[in-house]
Amino acid sequence: MMDGLFITLEGGDGAGKTTQAEMLASWLEARGLETLRTREPGGTPLGSAVRGILLHGGDELGAVDPRAEALLYAADRAQHIAQLVRPALDRGIVVVQDRYIDSSLAYQGAGRVLDTSDVRRISEWASGGLWPALTILLDASPELAAERRAARGGTADRLEAEAAAFHAAVRNGFLDLAAAEPGRFLVLDASRPVDELHCEIITRVEELLAR
Amino acid sequence: MMDGLFITLEGGDGAGKTTQAEMLASWLEARGLETLRTREPGGTPLGSAVRGILLHGGDELGAVDPRAEALLYAADRAQHIAQLVRPALDRGIVVVQDRYIDSSLAYQGAGRVLDTSDVRRISEWASGGLWPALTILLDASPELAAERRAARGGTADRLEAEAAAFHAAVRNGFLDLAAAEPGRFLVLDASRPVDELHCEIITRVEELLAR
Repeated sequence: MMDGLFITLEGGDGAGKTTQAEMLASWLEARGLETLRTREPGGTPLGSAVRGILLHGGDELGAVDPRAEALLYAADRAQHIAQLVRPALDRGIVVVQDRYIDSSLAYQGAGRVLDTSDVRRISEWASGGLWPALTILLDASPELAAERRAARGGTADRLEAEAAAFHAAVRNGFLDLAAAEPGRFLVLDASRPVDELHCEIITRVEELLAR
Repeated sequence: MMDGLFITLEGGDGAGKTTQAEMLASWLEARGLETLRTREPGGTPLGSAVRGILLHGGDELGAVDPRAEALLYAADRAQHIAQLVRPALDRGIVVVQDRYIDSSLAYQGAGRVLDTSDVRRISEWASGGLWPALTILLDASPELAAERRAARGGTADRLEAEAAAFHAAVRNGFLDLAAAEPGRFLVLDASRPVDELHCEIITRVEELLAR
């Protein structure tokens, strides 16, 4: 069991996770490797329902309590891992996923309301202790991330509407997590050209596939 | 702070919790005590959204992972306690609530899938460690509960459609919790006349109010 490869992409909104995830998945499929592209929150029907509450509940639900928010993310994670990710890994598939436990830790830690060790414990319980073999952190300066979000346009969701100071704290949270686990993380400067980032990513993934 | 009184009602579906909660709330209000009647899951707008997923998601969401389910209940609980129950208790209000942590423990424990100590830990984190001063357990035999559910009619929800063996395990779970905390629990035979049960309940509540 678990012969697949679990890869996650992390970073703030606008760091380029979706672009790199798609390029990586295309590269894997071109090599003949079955690949699952997914994301949290929202990779399952239950997750989509939870995502709707989290990102677009807004005024009608009233202020969402920080613990309730953390538990909703964890519920989405439990369903996503049990229903989608573990079965895929057990079938030998490569899973390329936008956001995972590190996002919970960086965002909740930046909020400075909850104890991140509690958030980690709950996330680990939700996932049954599943960690990725590789986490690609696309590190963007707050200025770059804000530019990309603005360029993307559309309606800002609740998280995107939060302050710049919060984004800076999230960035530092991700960098701290990467520093604590250098073997799992590949940290890349998100301001570099898309193709260069892709090359660095596939070089690391090739090493993992060769093992 | 926390000058109010927190009372919960527990027991299987069809045990008579709603009837007794309404009679108790009426009695409290007739004595001039401000009272909040509420329930889990679903006492807040966020909770109603979560309740919709939990009880009526059904086939379109696929099988709900047991950990996801436990975390959704905990999310509902966190929001409910933070947004509704604690503010009420801080204002000196009496809170009369259908279902709380004991339901999570009895139902999840009966499911025999999750470790109840994990479920307890997550629920306590969700609620910030808030426990009721009094928990009224309406203990119904599986036969009585099934009769009452049938008499009530309507569409059976997902939980009600589960097997009789499950209800028996839930009942034993509640009785075990009550045996472990005799000071907090008032255990009543749900087959007794409604008025007799009400008298026993208000006798105990009067003692608590006199303190």
